[in-house]
Amino acid sequence: MPPTNSDYNKIAGQNTRRTEALADGVFSIAMTLLVLDLRVPIGEAIATENDLWMQLVSIGPKLLSYFLSFMTLGIFWTAHSMQYTYIARSDRHLNWLSIFYLMAVSVVPFTTAFLSEHIHFKLALGLYWLNILFLGLIIFFHWQYAYKNDFLAPEIQDKKTINSAICKRIVTAQLMYAAAALLCFINNYLSIGVTVAIQLNYAIAPNFKRNK
Amino acid sequence: MPPTNSDYNKIAGQNTRRTEALADGVFSIAMTLLVLDLRVPIGEAIATENDLWMQLVSIGPKLLSYFLSFMTLGIFWTAHSMQYTYIARSDRHLNWLSIFYLMAVSVVPFTTAFLSEHIHFKLALGLYWLNILFLGLIIFFHWQYAYKNDFLAPEIQDKKTINSAICKRIVTAQLMYAAAALLCFINNYLSIGVTVAIQLNYAIAPNFKRNK
Amino acid sequence: MPPTNSDYNKIAGQNTRRTEALADGVFSIAMTLLVLDLRVPIGEAIATENDLWMQLVSIGPKLLSYFLSFMTLGIFWTAHSMQYTYIARSDRHLNWLSIFYLMAVSVVPFTTAFLSEHIHFKLALGLYWLNILFLGLIIFFHWQYAYKNDFLAPEIQDKKTINSAICKRIVTAQLMYAAAALLCFINNYLSIGVTVAIQLNYAIAPNFKRNK
Amino acid sequence: MPPTNSDYNKIAGQNTRRTEALADGVFSIAMTLLVLDLRVPIGEAIATENDLWMQLVSIGPKLLSYFLSFMTLGIFWTAHSMQYTYIARSDRHLNWLSIFYLMAVSVVPFTTAFLSEHIHFKLALGLYWLNILFLGLIIFFHWQYAYKNDFLAPEIQDKKTINSAICKRIVTAQLMYAAAALLCFINNYLSIGVTVAIQLNYAIAPNFKRNK
Repeated sequence: MPPTNSDYNKIAGQNTRRTEALADGVFSIAMTLLVLDLRVPIGEAIATENDLWMQLVSIGPKLLSYFLSFMTLGIFWTAHSMQYTYIARSDRHLNWLSIFYLMAVSVVPFTTAFLSEHIHFKLALGLYWLNILFLGLIIFFHWQYAYKNDFLAPEIQDKKTINSAICKRIVTAQLMYAAAALLCFINNYLSIGVTVAIQLNYAIAPNFKRNK
Repeated sequence: MPPTNSDYNKIAGQNTRRTEALADGVFSIAMTLLVLDLRVPIGEAIATENDLWMQLVSIGPKLLSYFLSFMTLGIFWTAHSMQYTYIARSDRHLNWLSIFYLMAVSVVPFTTAFLSEHIHFKLALGLYWLNILFLGLIIFFHWQYAYKNDFLAPEIQDKKTINSAICKRIVTAQLMYAAAALLCFINNYLSIGVTVAIQLNYAIAPNFKRNK
Repeated sequence: MPPTNSDYNKIAGQNTRRTEALADGVFSIAMTLLVLDLRVPIGEAIATENDLWMQLVSIGPKLLSYFLSFMTLGIFWTAHSMQYTYIARSDRHLNWLSIFYLMAVSVVPFTTAFLSEHIHFKLALGLYWLNILFLGLIIFFHWQYAYKNDFLAPEIQDKKTINSAICKRIVTAQLMYAAAALLCFINNYLSIGVTVAIQLNYAIAPNFKRNK
Repeated sequence: MPPTNSDYNKIAGQNTRRTEALADGVFSIAMTLLVLDLRVPIGEAIATENDLWMQLVSIGPKLLSYFLSFMTLGIFWTAHSMQYTYIARSDRHLNWLSIFYLMAVSVVPFTTAFLSEHIHFKLALGLYWLNILFLGLIIFFHWQYAYKNDFLAPEIQDKKTINSAICKRIVTAQLMYAAAALLCFINNYLSIGVTVAIQLNYAIAPNFKRNK
């Protein structure tokens, strides 16, 4: 049931709008569900301020994985949101690439809880890295599909430059995440620390301007 | 309290926008709540990487129903979203058909958890299929109501073709889901597997273009 | 920090948009959280299809309160959404009336769980009714504030008619809910049943057209 | 990958839209998750209406922290929403300041549950205050960054006045919150009560008009 040519842009534009709204919904819920993993210490044993402080300190590792995953979700939300500043049209396949992407997003609270519960196990770290890998792979093919099918807004002039910049960004980041994950063979906290450092670099460092 | 004729379109359009926003919200939350069913294995018995791997493998059936339901929600979100690329106006009745649709959507995490917990029982599979059936029935009447009351955007030209394509799509899919559900009398995993295959066909196969 | 007159409408319009988006978010989450109250029966005792069926039947009362609350949220979402098809501008006070409204909305999953857990107690039913009363009171004052401060879209012509229709609707509905709540002195299920009947009447009956 | 100058405004505007949608999502979920802390009393001991009433009364302190946090989230949502009625463009850094803001928002259900569980401990109150402080700090720098990089809508005329009003508002409020937090050295309930009073003043009192 293809729309008529005359109103194709309008309809495709609406599709994009709904896809973006669904993505914003899934990302915001995944971000907020992370906090459910931070369980409030309860117990008869908490009698003094010091007892409570000790309990709070013991949540430390959970806070680390909370921060890690909020950064992960922030980075991949930015990636999705940024692609749709260029993408103006959509079709069923792009729609489903986006839904599969959201599937990988909605699994993040699980792989995060799995990691925070078993933070000393390489398997937990490997699973988390696999989640990041899938996010990277899908968002890469998502962009490629939109670019090759000419779904970008027609008024954008330097499409080739944008395309190579986006592809380079995703590949570089994924290589760095893979290297950080491999550090788990030395120490899991080192691996997580380096991953967070990479994420903070992408979030805070002025790397965007260096491309000019 | 009917709006004046002059601003009717504007007001009706806004109604559509809010209905779509509510739907995106409910779908994105239902999708993300599914992950709460994937509970992280906890226990003193997990001492080695191998122990943890065994625990992870044992989550397998839950992952299957997670995937199944994410596909279900993705398909019915796409259906709702697609209808509103044609529907330009709304009224109380369409509004409520949409709300009843969301009721069937928000029950999906329950029927999914029920299925994943009792995956060998025909009753669990039948309940899940009933959920899919209700989703199909409501979205069918939702479209019929909008079509027959002429709520489609006036600039759409081939309304009849679109109508028959949408109706045919829903009926065909529901017949296939019903057939897949009946396979539970042979084996539940077979039934789920065929359902997922049908869903993947709708999501990935280029069936959209064959209509051209 | 009042905005300049020239861009006041634009800014106020944006405020309305954000308020509506927040409301759609809170309503969709409250609607979906209701399902968390439908807990999947787990137990060693479930050996046959019949055992599972018995367990499913025992969830019945929870399904009733699930349906009741989904209708409640649907009705009050429709009320909020409908008011904003007329309201074009906003200020701090309308904003906060809307936030207090959302407070009463987000409490619904609690009063619902309270009711479904203690369905034979008048207190549980009274608390639920109090929740409905607060929703009605706040949405009433919300409309009154917007109407009296002339925040309605200027192109609307029959403002007086709309105002009296909205006020009458809220007052009538609240009187009926109060009467239904009083039926708990006879029987709680009767009281809930009549409330659901009132809600279904508002949702399904063609009362909208009778105003024409 | 900077967008071309010609479509910069359009793209930046879209970014703002997505950032606002993500914020509305996170705020609405955080608001609604608060209710999960209000657990329904269950127990064999509840035999009479009076027993249930006693149980309901014992939830009182939880209701207080529920109200406190809903006000907190309402105030900081209003602050974020209000800033974006002036901000018309965005970049990576503003995007990330917003994401860090949402991180502090999504932690609120945790610090709230921590406070309601340990309401007599200064540590719990201090942690809650720290959360409010972070929210204030980030939204302050968020505004400063947008203002100094000239991301405000060009049609706004009295930018200086708006800037000083917003900065003054945030600093004054934070000073009052800090003072209220210090009251915990006398009594925790006093401290919470004064905080709620400050919040109600911002929400209800007509302080907005005094600036005219």
